[in-house]
Amino acid sequence: MYRTHTCGELRLANVGETVTLAGWVQRTRKMGGMTFVDVRDRYGITQIVFEEQTPSQLPLKGEGGHLQEQTSSQTHSTLPLEGERGEGLLFDQANKLGREYVVQVTGNVNERSNKNKNLPTGDIEIIATELKVLNAAQTPPFTIEDQSDGGDDLRMKYRYLDLRRTPVRKNIELRHKMTMEVRRYLDSLGFLEIETPMLIGSTPEGARDFVVPSRMNPGQFYALPQSPQTLKQLLMVSGMDRYFQIVKCFRDEDLRADRQPEFTQIDCEMSFVTQEDILQTFEGMAKHLFRELRGIELEGAFPRMTWADAMKYYGSDKPDTRFEMKFVELKDVFAQAPGFAVFDDAQYIGGICAKGQAVYTRKQIDQLTDFVKRPQIGAKGLIYARIQEDGTVKSSVDKFYGEDILNALKERMNAQPGDLILILCGDDAMKTRKQLCELRLEMGARMGLRDKNKFSLLWVIDFPMFEWSEEEGRLMATHHPFTHPKDEDIPLLDTDPAAVRADAYDMVCNGVEVGGGSIRIHDPELQDKMFRILGFTEERAQEQFGFLMNAFKYGAPPHGGLAYGLDRWVSLFAGLDSIRDCIAFPKNNSGRDVMLDAPACLEQKQLDELYLSLVPVKNEK
Amino acid sequence: MYRTHTCGELRLANVGETVTLAGWVQRTRKMGGMTFVDVRDRYGITQIVFEEQTPSQLPLKGEGGHLQEQTSSQTHSTLPLEGERGEGLLFDQANKLGREYVVQVTGNVNERSNKNKNLPTGDIEIIATELKVLNAAQTPPFTIEDQSDGGDDLRMKYRYLDLRRTPVRKNIELRHKMTMEVRRYLDSLGFLEIETPMLIGSTPEGARDFVVPSRMNPGQFYALPQSPQTLKQLLMVSGMDRYFQIVKCFRDEDLRADRQPEFTQIDCEMSFVTQEDILQTFEGMAKHLFRELRGIELEGAFPRMTWADAMKYYGSDKPDTRFEMKFVELKDVFAQAPGFAVFDDAQYIGGICAKGQAVYTRKQIDQLTDFVKRPQIGAKGLIYARIQEDGTVKSSVDKFYGEDILNALKERMNAQPGDLILILCGDDAMKTRKQLCELRLEMGARMGLRDKNKFSLLWVIDFPMFEWSEEEGRLMATHHPFTHPKDEDIPLLDTDPAAVRADAYDMVCNGVEVGGGSIRIHDPELQDKMFRILGFTEERAQEQFGFLMNAFKYGAPPHGGLAYGLDRWVSLFAGLDSIRDCIAFPKNNSGRDVMLDAPACLEQKQLDELYLSLVPVKNEK
Repeated sequence: MYRTHTCGELRLANVGETVTLAGWVQRTRKMGGMTFVDVRDRYGITQIVFEEQTPSQLPLKGEGGHLQEQTSSQTHSTLPLEGERGEGLLFDQANKLGREYVVQVTGNVNERSNKNKNLPTGDIEIIATELKVLNAAQTPPFTIEDQSDGGDDLRMKYRYLDLRRTPVRKNIELRHKMTMEVRRYLDSLGFLEIETPMLIGSTPEGARDFVVPSRMNPGQFYALPQSPQTLKQLLMVSGMDRYFQIVKCFRDEDLRADRQPEFTQIDCEMSFVTQEDILQTFEGMAKHLFRELRGIELEGAFPRMTWADAMKYYGSDKPDTRFEMKFVELKDVFAQAPGFAVFDDAQYIGGICAKGQAVYTRKQIDQLTDFVKRPQIGAKGLIYARIQEDGTVKSSVDKFYGEDILNALKERMNAQPGDLILILCGDDAMKTRKQLCELRLEMGARMGLRDKNKFSLLWVIDFPMFEWSEEEGRLMATHHPFTHPKDEDIPLLDTDPAAVRADAYDMVCNGVEVGGGSIRIHDPELQDKMFRILGFTEERAQEQFGFLMNAFKYGAPPHGGLAYGLDRWVSLFAGLDSIRDCIAFPKNNSGRDVMLDAPACLEQKQLDELYLSLVPVKNEK
Repeated sequence: MYRTHTCGELRLANVGETVTLAGWVQRTRKMGGMTFVDVRDRYGITQIVFEEQTPSQLPLKGEGGHLQEQTSSQTHSTLPLEGERGEGLLFDQANKLGREYVVQVTGNVNERSNKNKNLPTGDIEIIATELKVLNAAQTPPFTIEDQSDGGDDLRMKYRYLDLRRTPVRKNIELRHKMTMEVRRYLDSLGFLEIETPMLIGSTPEGARDFVVPSRMNPGQFYALPQSPQTLKQLLMVSGMDRYFQIVKCFRDEDLRADRQPEFTQIDCEMSFVTQEDILQTFEGMAKHLFRELRGIELEGAFPRMTWADAMKYYGSDKPDTRFEMKFVELKDVFAQAPGFAVFDDAQYIGGICAKGQAVYTRKQIDQLTDFVKRPQIGAKGLIYARIQEDGTVKSSVDKFYGEDILNALKERMNAQPGDLILILCGDDAMKTRKQLCELRLEMGARMGLRDKNKFSLLWVIDFPMFEWSEEEGRLMATHHPFTHPKDEDIPLLDTDPAAVRADAYDMVCNGVEVGGGSIRIHDPELQDKMFRILGFTEERAQEQFGFLMNAFKYGAPPHGGLAYGLDRWVSLFAGLDSIRDCIAFPKNNSGRDVMLDAPACLEQKQLDELYLSLVPVKNEK
């Protein structure tokens, strides 16, 4: 047996016991005739004391109070077992320990005179009687401390060392706890976790599929699932009633800042349900997770906001509702007094009111202007209005507007003395709202309104069924082609499909979409119509979704579901900026695992077996 | 809301309630003025009654006792809500229902006069007041009953219908329960479930890797893991201490009868442990699963058998110990009286004693002889000896041996009157033992000793470290190159590596290897030596396992682990002959998903994006 206890386990109640610990050397400190070694494992850190004096010298020792003497005599009593090893040797050995050595230490638990209140084991220490080096260690390329000195690339290359750091380890532990709680909750409601295959067929948006050549079927390929969408719908046709799966999904796309080629979904589907049933079930799950993992009781029902309102008031389908600062439409206010061409020509004018920010200097306003003019945001400029202490309005456009209009603005914005009004305008209402959304989020951040420890959840509902794709020149499914239109909008499918709303919903937390789903079509005729609107020929629809459409002919129940992004969900609970930090072995922005050095070239023999050859990459630039 | 209850939920206590159920039409029966419809969902079956009579006619009705009248009056009381729909219409509607129609039925719970004791809901029925067809269904291609009339291929193509059958559904439910219990058990012991990546690098036995071309890194490939072996070892270097994962693994190999290209492992690893710690931990898990899932209390510690003994007494490293019938070595018995060339020349002679089987006829013995002579087994012949009622021995070789030798045989075999001794011999002891193993299993089956509801578990330990590969002309790792040799055998690495035993262990149940693992090497020098013995050049070892060997330089703890085959484990608990039956969407023996029709050809555009071209397959035959 390598240990009697972990390094996070011993307390005052264990004083007097002889124990064996094993772990990594976190640090060593030599102080006079003693060497202190902090030994670390996943569970904590325990201080080990190695004493220079042999026990027989102890009574002569000048320093050291009652407690130490007592401990030393305990040490003495176990010494005969270790007859061949002098204390001096043990002390020398301890002084040779390097950082991250793997050690096994036996000794006696002693109450510390100088307790460390920051450490759960800080009341005790171990007076060592035996030390065994289980493995030596080279000096790690960066310090294994909460705040590492290692850069991102170095930490990724040595991810196995990075994972030894407490903050990283805690993310992995949180991830484990979250999946346990998700399963506990869903199991308690009768959901079955059902594994769907990883080797499936390539789907229509095939460009994003990772494909897998089959050796047994030369020239043919599997695809890795982007999600188990169609498979979970088949499980509903199977009568499985309530399905979930915590499952890897794959997308071979250019990786934006916070995407991974493989990611994990909490994937769920239910039969014989309406949208309301699903929202209730998964609102319950969110509450369960907040309660169990963060000790937060989310009170009341989650607010529900239509997609139209979310766009109108927040310029986003995932509004950060930790703070208000809603958009106010101002076109009609300024239309009363034409003359300022920028506003006169704008199709949309919208403002936000930053409470108490009238103190913003010219320079700060200029920074904000630069912010909204950045290419990623693309606004042409920023108009502001300060409400001064006397209630008068000082604005960048006050040469164009009289006091009446500025007062009307103040009133419309419900602005008080000391507030700062920020206004954007543009030709395209949707684009301008998105710009204003960025400005709102920036102001929220500057004003400290986006506290990572505050959580604001809501449902965004009634998404549009279709989006117009300029690229494809056709309507595309906003969610996916199996999404059920709202019953009251079904007649519009024939007359004005772009106006059709769907039974689709997203759960949003702090401005992040943490989950989303929809009620699915279970009527084969409606599904046919949907494919026609989406521009699928019957042949192509059959080719790509034939197995699902055929399945629906044998009695599909009404069903719907939802998928959560586990990585995003854990990041949110852990307060992380990137999903990468909650993944044990993540890939970088080029989709590479720098630790494993994957992907890599194959041996010719492997290619031959797959009947594949490589096409040279032409440098087109 | 689609339903107030499931189809498995209603009992006598619900009588008098108005309920709504939803599900599939299992069958309809018209009997006189009533139509009975069994509606099925995942939870059960409930009988729905549609009556021809309108309620106002009921008092005139001749048949029907008190209960029916009472129920009918209840029906009547809810009728005004359904004013527009006459009862007659409802009855006609019910008579038009086809098999597998999806329906929603509202009605009143009634106590049945003719109870069905085989059904949990058999005490009640629903007197229907409303019926809604949620979806029609074509006639399914096979019957959705416990015993289907569908062949294997048809059932796989329509797997979503096959899954509606109760026995198949129960396997999927059992699988869910098993993973829940595995997680519960391991979580309670401080194991963390940690996801390891699916897109990794190709490994040395690369021929079996599925590879995945990377669009972002043209010409380079990921590989899908055959197991997370090296990654879990890295997690131990990370200090994660106790890891597990229920994880998909992939192997692109010719599929033997009961293999799948993707399969699921319960993968575990622990730090600071000896073999004993691991055996205890996972013996505990097996006991937990048997208790929770089968209600079976496995008493006492699992027997442990060395690999050498398993081969000697059972001719297999996964002995079926539900029955004894151990091998007995007979070479020395027959050597006392040379003359029978077959025995005289044999290097090995072994027998088994089939209790009470002396009644075997000549014809039955001939069948057994044919059995062992099949090419898959390859024995040259079978020798038998019957112990007759009077204790004398009647044998196929009694012309070569006198009574003394035959009695010595009887004594050695510990055979009693009525027993049948079966003997194989051969030049190669190991080969002959494997043949005798097949014969033993066959006899066990014939004698009813291999009851699927009896479970006999044991550990097979002390596996040989290496096996000689004729093909490669070198020693290969029996388990894998990271397996730790037994401490006492380490000196043999230099002198007689083929004799080295490993700290490797398999859990065996009923003749099936359900899990296996080993203590790993954590000492970089020992690992180097191992690679040398296995014929790796330093360069090649570095190329293939560099990341692991480097990681070990930074302080690897002693560690070891084990992996269970989930599919096999569920099959065992469910008493299935094939792992396929416990997989929701399995592949066939050619690695094809016939339902999804995968794998399939890609579009040229997809190949172009991956910089791949297909090499035509030459017909070499």
